[in-house]
Amino acid sequence: MLYDDYLDAALQRLHDEGRYRTFIDIERKKGQFPHAVWTKDDGSQSPISVWCGNDYLGMGQNTAVLDAMHEAVDATGAGSGGTRNISGTTVYHKRLEAELADLHQKEAALIFTSAYIANDATLSTLPKLFPGMVILSDSLNHASMIEGIRRNGGDKRIFQHNNLDDLREQLVALPANCPKLIAFESIYSMDGDFAPIEAICDLADEFGALTYIDEVHAVGMYGPRGAGVAERDGLLDRIDIINGTLAKAYGVMGGYIATSAKMADAIRSYAPGFIFTTSLPPAVAAGAAASVAFLKTANDLREAHQAAAASLKIRLKALGLPIIDHGSHIVPVHVGDPVKCKLLSDRLLEDFGIYVQPINFPTVPRGTERLRFTPSPVHGAKEMDALVAAMDQLWSHCALNRADLTG
Amino acid sequence: MLYDDYLDAALQRLHDEGRYRTFIDIERKKGQFPHAVWTKDDGSQSPISVWCGNDYLGMGQNTAVLDAMHEAVDATGAGSGGTRNISGTTVYHKRLEAELADLHQKEAALIFTSAYIANDATLSTLPKLFPGMVILSDSLNHASMIEGIRRNGGDKRIFQHNNLDDLREQLVALPANCPKLIAFESIYSMDGDFAPIEAICDLADEFGALTYIDEVHAVGMYGPRGAGVAERDGLLDRIDIINGTLAKAYGVMGGYIATSAKMADAIRSYAPGFIFTTSLPPAVAAGAAASVAFLKTANDLREAHQAAAASLKIRLKALGLPIIDHGSHIVPVHVGDPVKCKLLSDRLLEDFGIYVQPINFPTVPRGTERLRFTPSPVHGAKEMDALVAAMDQLWSHCALNRADLTG
Ligand SMILES: Cc1ncc(COP(=O)(O)O)c(C=O)c1O
Ligand SMILES: Cc1ncc(COP(=O)(O)O)c(C=O)c1O
Repeated sequence: MLYDDYLDAALQRLHDEGRYRTFIDIERKKGQFPHAVWTKDDGSQSPISVWCGNDYLGMGQNTAVLDAMHEAVDATGAGSGGTRNISGTTVYHKRLEAELADLHQKEAALIFTSAYIANDATLSTLPKLFPGMVILSDSLNHASMIEGIRRNGGDKRIFQHNNLDDLREQLVALPANCPKLIAFESIYSMDGDFAPIEAICDLADEFGALTYIDEVHAVGMYGPRGAGVAERDGLLDRIDIINGTLAKAYGVMGGYIATSAKMADAIRSYAPGFIFTTSLPPAVAAGAAASVAFLKTANDLREAHQAAAASLKIRLKALGLPIIDHGSHIVPVHVGDPVKCKLLSDRLLEDFGIYVQPINFPTVPRGTERLRFTPSPVHGAKEMDALVAAMDQLWSHCALNRADLTG
Repeated sequence: MLYDDYLDAALQRLHDEGRYRTFIDIERKKGQFPHAVWTKDDGSQSPISVWCGNDYLGMGQNTAVLDAMHEAVDATGAGSGGTRNISGTTVYHKRLEAELADLHQKEAALIFTSAYIANDATLSTLPKLFPGMVILSDSLNHASMIEGIRRNGGDKRIFQHNNLDDLREQLVALPANCPKLIAFESIYSMDGDFAPIEAICDLADEFGALTYIDEVHAVGMYGPRGAGVAERDGLLDRIDIINGTLAKAYGVMGGYIATSAKMADAIRSYAPGFIFTTSLPPAVAAGAAASVAFLKTANDLREAHQAAAASLKIRLKALGLPIIDHGSHIVPVHVGDPVKCKLLSDRLLEDFGIYVQPINFPTVPRGTERLRFTPSPVHGAKEMDALVAAMDQLWSHCALNRADLTG
């Protein structure tokens, strides 16, 4: 068998399609976010500022979080040493789960090693608990939801992105007595658009479906206590299962679901992705719990975050750049060409010390390639001025179109 | 839809079969392993010693590991802030991958958030890289391997545990030109038995198959530099993909594969479970790298570990207890009854402050329920004396059989 030939072919496909990825090696400097050091392949280093991270609020350098991590390492050591069932449940895990259940005003929360595995494990386990369940899944759902829904060949229907008519039609077509789940996200991270959560919940009620929402790009950032868009919109009690991450706005690592006590107990007991893996290190759980607690009262940070996003959008729009704007904190600039997208990103990094990763197919559809900026409370006026000036210069350099702003 | 009825039924099944699990809440005390504090449901606390953890060498309290974690938190903060491709690759991740590639004498290593996801993501991606691939899987492989092999409906054959004749027969039956992979573990963690690694590699050569080994319960502990049983047996170069964890003997968290540069590049580029999730926190990567480096030269710890296991086995055997002994570091005591197994575990915890989780179906087959002890260099004479005395007393109390030692 010529195994290497297969690998060569698989890798060549990526090169041919211009989507072979090279990882940029960075180290952010605590206390100086978004500043970081970029280590190049030849070992030389340059200062950069990071404009594409998902540590949306800069919590990765928050003192309460770091203190909690240090304390846990000093008290109990590095790892948990076991799966949740076999010596890997600690006070840190229990406290974090209580903090999250309280956040989402649910009876229970279950933590996983990531929101990826929380989605995958939960969505692949639900059809075991509810035999015959059909999952109705938004067409733009994240890879981790798709993987969970597909696993074990579960029955599924894909509805058009945010399209209530299509969702209704698909619900109508299903037998009344078959268990159903509608799975969607509150904010889709590549366009920054919101789901019509309330209308989806209305449909769920009408057709007797459960609701599953991925609030990965919303928790910490929306709602009076940071519980996400469902909290902001007063809909927490209408969602059966909420999925969130501790690795983005909360700045640490890990994922979870918040739900009823019974549902949590069943997922805990039946999901291999929860059962058969070492639990999070206590220090990670402690840092995450501190972050969740901190953000329950940090409306100033949430406001500064939204203000930074609004300001960047206004300024880039004023230059005539094609911003995708749905009123969220995500600032995608449409480029529409994989080569130019990569070129812009390369020039920003090399000439201006601005790091923003190009977003190409398959993360977004071909022809919609983009740069995706994530301004945050730690991006100050100086950093934003530098970014706006660099984009202005490079946009012309790459011969990209601007809106006609003269009229 | 009466969703709650389904959940009640699913939970009732577990209660009926005596396999509903209650998590014990513990906190190990750094510097005092295996001593820990058990927090009961009513909030009261008791001192215990942990005898079922998988921090096999006590590295979770190793100073080099903890210092590396503290330093990384101080230098770069809590989380990585991104996926590997989008701002989540740091010098800490690169260093850990270099450390692991060196450990296993492979061109490359790829880290994942856990060995669970390393198995799942890699094994489910291989058939995409090698269309038509058949995976030959040992019948006792870990849940994470099974999940990966099953996902996407990949073609598989299960061979009887460690049975070379069966494996050969199944290989013979496959077309010569179909890509094949033999997936197995080096040490099976519930019985502590070893795979016939060399003979499996011979079969792989004969039939042109790739080899995939899970060394999760061996890395850090076997081989002159801790690279596992394949290193001990001089077989590193005969294994195509080695899977390991950073959460057991290395005492932190995370998982990885070590393999050829091309294979790593292809998995990196095609595996959703690698691509679409936040990378490990830098502090976790730093702690793990320090642990791997430390154990490369710590043969004294490996010897103390084996000595502790050998000594516990001799002492429990001397009492006539049915030890499952395959010469590894794992000490399973066969109970053969789920109720008695749970009772023994409860009494050990409540009356003697000794924590060992009962291992019941489905983790092991019915009728083979067991207590699984994991002695380590941090379990001293005092702790072992206490354990042996408690087992002696309880074994009689539970009216369990002993071997006839008088003859
Ligand atoms: C919508 C969505 N869900 C889930 C995840 C996975 O989260 P985590 O990084 O915690 O695995 C991500 C991104 O990583 C995401 O964008
Ligand atoms: C054989 C085996 N493989 C993989 C894993 C998963 O490792 P991790 O805890 O790093 O997810 C485990 C146990 O957790 C295991 O026993």
